[in-house]
Amino acid sequence: MDLNLYIDPIANIWARQKTVSERLPIVIGSHHDTVPNGGGFDGALGVLIATEIMQIIQENLLELKHPLEIVSFTGEEPNSFSVSTLGSKVLCGRLTYRDLQKLYDKNTGETLEHAVSRLGGDISKVGDAVIKKNSLAAFVECHIEQGRRLYDKNQAVASVTCITGIYRETIRIVGEANHAGTTQIQNRRDALAAAAEVCLAVENIMKQPDMTEVSATVGRVEVLPNSSNIIPGEVTLTLDLRTADPVKRGKALQILTKAVDEIMVERKLQIVRNLDLDQPEMQMDKIVIDSLNEAILFAGETKRQLVSMAGHDAANMARVTKAGMLFVQSIDGYSHCPKEMTGNDEIVKAAQILLDTILILDRSLK
Amino acid sequence: MDLNLYIDPIANIWARQKTVSERLPIVIGSHHDTVPNGGGFDGALGVLIATEIMQIIQENLLELKHPLEIVSFTGEEPNSFSVSTLGSKVLCGRLTYRDLQKLYDKNTGETLEHAVSRLGGDISKVGDAVIKKNSLAAFVECHIEQGRRLYDKNQAVASVTCITGIYRETIRIVGEANHAGTTQIQNRRDALAAAAEVCLAVENIMKQPDMTEVSATVGRVEVLPNSSNIIPGEVTLTLDLRTADPVKRGKALQILTKAVDEIMVERKLQIVRNLDLDQPEMQMDKIVIDSLNEAILFAGETKRQLVSMAGHDAANMARVTKAGMLFVQSIDGYSHCPKEMTGNDEIVKAAQILLDTILILDRSLK
Repeated sequence: MDLNLYIDPIANIWARQKTVSERLPIVIGSHHDTVPNGGGFDGALGVLIATEIMQIIQENLLELKHPLEIVSFTGEEPNSFSVSTLGSKVLCGRLTYRDLQKLYDKNTGETLEHAVSRLGGDISKVGDAVIKKNSLAAFVECHIEQGRRLYDKNQAVASVTCITGIYRETIRIVGEANHAGTTQIQNRRDALAAAAEVCLAVENIMKQPDMTEVSATVGRVEVLPNSSNIIPGEVTLTLDLRTADPVKRGKALQILTKAVDEIMVERKLQIVRNLDLDQPEMQMDKIVIDSLNEAILFAGETKRQLVSMAGHDAANMARVTKAGMLFVQSIDGYSHCPKEMTGNDEIVKAAQILLDTILILDRSLK
Repeated sequence: MDLNLYIDPIANIWARQKTVSERLPIVIGSHHDTVPNGGGFDGALGVLIATEIMQIIQENLLELKHPLEIVSFTGEEPNSFSVSTLGSKVLCGRLTYRDLQKLYDKNTGETLEHAVSRLGGDISKVGDAVIKKNSLAAFVECHIEQGRRLYDKNQAVASVTCITGIYRETIRIVGEANHAGTTQIQNRRDALAAAAEVCLAVENIMKQPDMTEVSATVGRVEVLPNSSNIIPGEVTLTLDLRTADPVKRGKALQILTKAVDEIMVERKLQIVRNLDLDQPEMQMDKIVIDSLNEAILFAGETKRQLVSMAGHDAANMARVTKAGMLFVQSIDGYSHCPKEMTGNDEIVKAAQILLDTILILDRSLK
């Protein structure tokens, strides 16, 4: 292929058509990193499909009005630098040189500055990588669903209407450590028993009838002193709450607060909640969604629209351009593990639909 | 005082009257170690009261038929060598040189062999320290209660009838780690939510009406992968179950097994239980209990008999001689923390009652 290749200051990889055009570019792509012990599709599939589309367009001498660009983002996954969607956060101006200078690998101590320089970037110049609002025509990302909504209905693809908001708290429960043998039930202020009730209250949020497409998870627990013969005195939990609907988010927090207040009174202990993240949901662009749906129907597939319950680079790109996503089926919904898989038929369909979406957007976008 | 001092091979400290007698010795004492961030009474009080009694007997030229000995045991508390009641376990033959050679400090890596040699012991000779059955007349230990049963009834002391059995399990819950955002409630096999139900089932054992003097505690929890945005795939818990009544122990385990089986079916995950310890309850000797009760009544105190819900050196000594314990009130029940306290009046009463008990035993024992 005849493309200009370029690694930007945060080590995103770009491949640009050499076409000279007055139109703004359309960008397609995803990310090139994955999680430890992950699979071969998350991120990589979207980059490969973008590359395939570029090749088809060049081989068939298709002339688009808008120049086409491929991007492969750096560090989309949660990682030991404690920052996810790193490459796209920089592009939309959410992370500056000053923020990035503070980051280092929690496991090895390597600075982000050093790690990015190994990849051909230079974080002192990330200011140059920021994309000015409306300097792109559109961004479209193809990505595996990482859930089983498509698989369960035997559907290949869906357009994404919105990327979930993510709300995170640290919940600290302070009871009283005491002797496991000599402290009778009526004198216990067991932080772990209280934590157990908080965990079940969090799970209970998802069991409410009007709380579909809400996820509520306690993923991390630390117990003090964490000794088999001592009643736990302190437990720290994390809450991860996701929904694309601010009304459901409010209701979920109301359910949790009520439960936490009752546990505090009932068990005579303190529960302290700290907000860590309150990232709003991001709507995908209507023109991009409509183009995806048109291409999906043209391919003979059922129209399906989904909310993304995971964060994606497209959520950052939506801050600076018209953004959209195409989800492809994950077999059995597996993701972030070696079982992660998407069938060949679904991959071919997704590639065809994404190509058609680009052709539709190329015609419809000014 | 005119005593023979001796440090035995496991570094127990002995002080023996020089009296020549055909009778077997009566031993009094407790332990000299404490827990990190502990108080000043657990162990130390029993050794000091034993020393005071010895001094009173010598100063007043009281002539006992049985020679009196004081012992201060090594390593009674849970410690970084992962062995408790170390000194008395060696005396009753529960730990041999071969067992001891394997032990090392989990924090510093120091071998137990080296640590004991620093204290004047020599673990290669612990065989010599073993007490042959019925080579002592009796062992009596004074110790703080470490609970609030005496404090709540404003009583100074109690005789101990039995030392609790301790039963420990490791409970491993294997669910499925998955994406916290994209995995809907009906597809989750959340090991932490299951663990929360197990914790509450363990606590529930103590809430049954006929389960007084049973303690059931989950003190230690490990979560995998323990990341805020991943549904926990595996959780390991410890169970510590204590009772002096084998019937209650059986019933407690029945309640837990029923709950665990239901959780496994309901949540479609595996729960694997491993037995770590099943130490039987140890009855104290009737002659010693009767002597303690007689001395308690003689001092004008109310007769109170308690089960010890903590392990003690006396449980090991009961394997080789007539053993008994005198509990002294712990203010507010605090123990293993700096708030641990026993009032002066209660200490004086305990010392007088233990002295009288020794005099009664000296008369009644053959």
